[in-house]
Amino acid sequence: MDLAVLYSGGKDSSLAALLLEKFYDIHLITGSFGITDDWQHAAVAADQLGYSFETIELDQDVAEAAVTTMIEDGYPRNGIQRVHEHALEMAAQLDVTAIADGTRRDDRVPTISRAQAQSLEDRHDIDYLSPLSGFGHHAIDELVTERLSIDTGPSVEIPKSDYETELRTLIADRVGPEAVTSIFPAHTQSYVNHLRSNDDT
Amino acid sequence: MDLAVLYSGGKDSSLAALLLEKFYDIHLITGSFGITDDWQHAAVAADQLGYSFETIELDQDVAEAAVTTMIEDGYPRNGIQRVHEHALEMAAQLDVTAIADGTRRDDRVPTISRAQAQSLEDRHDIDYLSPLSGFGHHAIDELVTERLSIDTGPSVEIPKSDYETELRTLIADRVGPEAVTSIFPAHTQSYVNHLRSNDDT
Repeated sequence: MDLAVLYSGGKDSSLAALLLEKFYDIHLITGSFGITDDWQHAAVAADQLGYSFETIELDQDVAEAAVTTMIEDGYPRNGIQRVHEHALEMAAQLDVTAIADGTRRDDRVPTISRAQAQSLEDRHDIDYLSPLSGFGHHAIDELVTERLSIDTGPSVEIPKSDYETELRTLIADRVGPEAVTSIFPAHTQSYVNHLRSNDDT
Repeated sequence: MDLAVLYSGGKDSSLAALLLEKFYDIHLITGSFGITDDWQHAAVAADQLGYSFETIELDQDVAEAAVTTMIEDGYPRNGIQRVHEHALEMAAQLDVTAIADGTRRDDRVPTISRAQAQSLEDRHDIDYLSPLSGFGHHAIDELVTERLSIDTGPSVEIPKSDYETELRTLIADRVGPEAVTSIFPAHTQSYVNHLRSNDDT
């Protein structure tokens, strides 16, 4: 059974793939609006983990609408949520049995409600899995430490292929680079270097 | 890292263990009020799956209170929820890194909210995992079919070690066997026979 995991190169989506690899053939998928080439960071991390990788094209109109929302709101949450829902819709059109993401129990954004999950499944005849939604942040940190070698640091310094870099670029183009820092305050990000082997600990 | 999985011998708690076995040392745990010996069904299933097994003693006062609620309500939901929360509290006192159960995204009972999960974790300095809470019923059925050989049938005919058999016995003692069928309408249960090997399909 083929599973497409929405993948950023970060610890959460990497762990989501590891949790499911015994049950599915894993394909890591990174959405890109075509604004920057930051999807390449995810491609490198996917290669380190030994999974197949491909990009899916996201609709630039969605990015523009998300950025409008973020500028109006002054914070990124609603825009990020909109983009994630769009990425899931696009992934659900792939020829796979199931799609998954790295959303966690303790995340405030993005979140996919049970009703949204069932709607996605029913409309696309696919399973939607959020394997980390039953794990708190402490358990996730423990599993990541045990299985993955990661870099962590401020979001601007850690290479990653989430939607943030492309959206930051759009915001800077529209309202200037100062607005980016105000809308996206610095936060901690992770990027996967490689899988830990048993003699790596 | 040691993980105690609340185990009934059914497909959900079996799948929960399989999902986590790459990350934890699995110990299957069945709660018993000491009313019947039905925990033995879980012990047999655990042996088939190749996991260690033990029982934990549940407080018979909780069973009595749950049965009072169920008789007053005329349906089992609130009583089952109360017993499950008690079982998690007891499991959280074991000397393990984490506890888990087989609750699923689409279950109506038992459900453990994010706030309940965090309270359990904070009070007992333990991780609580619900690995199936990111899976819908269709995905679970697919994974079970692929990995487990199970018997399914009416709840009264399938041997199992969930709380139901002991609670049924208490209800029958208090208000007679007819009340049991009225409070617990027949529903479909599963019982794990063995793990599927690759040449078993």
